[in-house]
Amino acid sequence: MFVDAIARVERSLAQAFTLTKGSESPPLLSAAMRYAVFPGGARIRPRLCLAVARACDEDQPSLSSAAAASIELLHCASLVHDDLPCFDDAATRRGRASVHKAYGERIAVLTGDALLVLAFQALARVFECAPSRLGGLINIVARAVGAPNGIIAGQSWECEPTVSLTQYQRAKTGALFAAATSAGACSAGYDGNQWQALGERLGEAYQIADDIRDVFSTEYELGKPIGRDEILDRPNAVRRLGVDSSVRRLEELVASAIESIPECPGVKDLQTHILAEASRLLPRELARPAA
Amino acid sequence: MFVDAIARVERSLAQAFTLTKGSESPPLLSAAMRYAVFPGGARIRPRLCLAVARACDEDQPSLSSAAAASIELLHCASLVHDDLPCFDDAATRRGRASVHKAYGERIAVLTGDALLVLAFQALARVFECAPSRLGGLINIVARAVGAPNGIIAGQSWECEPTVSLTQYQRAKTGALFAAATSAGACSAGYDGNQWQALGERLGEAYQIADDIRDVFSTEYELGKPIGRDEILDRPNAVRRLGVDSSVRRLEELVASAIESIPECPGVKDLQTHILAEASRLLPRELARPAA
Repeated sequence: MFVDAIARVERSLAQAFTLTKGSESPPLLSAAMRYAVFPGGARIRPRLCLAVARACDEDQPSLSSAAAASIELLHCASLVHDDLPCFDDAATRRGRASVHKAYGERIAVLTGDALLVLAFQALARVFECAPSRLGGLINIVARAVGAPNGIIAGQSWECEPTVSLTQYQRAKTGALFAAATSAGACSAGYDGNQWQALGERLGEAYQIADDIRDVFSTEYELGKPIGRDEILDRPNAVRRLGVDSSVRRLEELVASAIESIPECPGVKDLQTHILAEASRLLPRELARPAA
Repeated sequence: MFVDAIARVERSLAQAFTLTKGSESPPLLSAAMRYAVFPGGARIRPRLCLAVARACDEDQPSLSSAAAASIELLHCASLVHDDLPCFDDAATRRGRASVHKAYGERIAVLTGDALLVLAFQALARVFECAPSRLGGLINIVARAVGAPNGIIAGQSWECEPTVSLTQYQRAKTGALFAAATSAGACSAGYDGNQWQALGERLGEAYQIADDIRDVFSTEYELGKPIGRDEILDRPNAVRRLGVDSSVRRLEELVASAIESIPECPGVKDLQTHILAEASRLLPRELARPAA
């Protein structure tokens, strides 16, 4: 199922990229956009979106595929801009040069911009088969990215003199996970709002796992520098709670996420998906087999 | 009519901004987003969008208002990113500090991003009253901004070793004008494609007027530094053709734009709008009264 879902995500991303083709494409921008998206990471968010759509017996798979692609494009866009010299100044990402290191800062700014636009365009391209669901989907996705509570707003909290950690992480990480579950449900004709909680809890769990990996992984495993939170004095659950409590908190969040799953035909498969994903989030030496 | 249209644009922009409000808004990002949009410039593109919608006897004004707001938000987003240190490094815009000078580079990057997202969100908020037109509108707008032919692609041609001037200007300026006319028509239920040519020609005319102003205006009139094209060695019609030929070319383009107007109920008013706009584009000493 993992391989199937990954393949479907890659296909839907490739399909979105057909919209960027043209006889007059600027070569650097085109190359950098692909570089930022392929090859991808674990595609956690779009696979979550598809798992929810499947659990809701998706009746229009092209719509959930577009939703999944859109969410991954927005995630990639945010990584490109987060890595810029004025933010994290990260030289590597996914095990190779970050976009601005490979293509220069100007192309990196424009790549993030163009991926944001492509995310909405990818949704709109399927409007003909489901016009009544398009508005809802765009609202879900836009809310997860923009002001006041989306990932861009989350990133902007880094520029404020004071910030609530919960608020920061909810916007920076939780919002797009919540969009993944809501958009998966909405694209299958379910009420996206009821699926927000699942995504929010998984987002929080993912954030903690990310904090743990920042401390315990090797740079090779992570594909980006480790120990960045300490260097950049960013909040990190392990620095705050210690490793055991962090792992426990992660497990609690996953359990509560599973409890929050609304009624749907494929609840069992979705639980299995979430547990399997959760067990992959931790560095091997900390992971316990899924219950 | 000018005052009415401006007021309507401002109202629709203000309405779009209600989407960014929340108890947990990051203050700097919120302030910078408003700063980038209010007070505006001449709002040429959204007024053009509304003029076309009116000429097409708009049956759903909330949709054309949203389209106009969306186009202005995208324009403002592109100005914020164009002004960044890695591009034009412009210290002023619309007669005051550019966003990155006023709020810092990080907030400026995020402001451009958030305005891009808001542009799509503003369209989606009206989906309930016209779901069947939303997809078409989003496609028009996304094409005008993204890769391969939108303003972001246009800006990215500045990073290429060689570039066709026509291609560059068509993407950088023409695309959003074409979106303004197409979106105006589409939001009124007309075929947007037929209205592309009008926008493209007006975009080209505007580009020439912009080149002329870069040479002939004062910094006070322009609200941004003059003579930038020469300093940045950017293509400029006056440098290439001389001033008389540039003014003549502008007049030809306006005439051919007017000829291209497709059949619609309000063709006369639209012609008047376009001629009045064109006469405002040139510095006073070069303008001739509208024919």
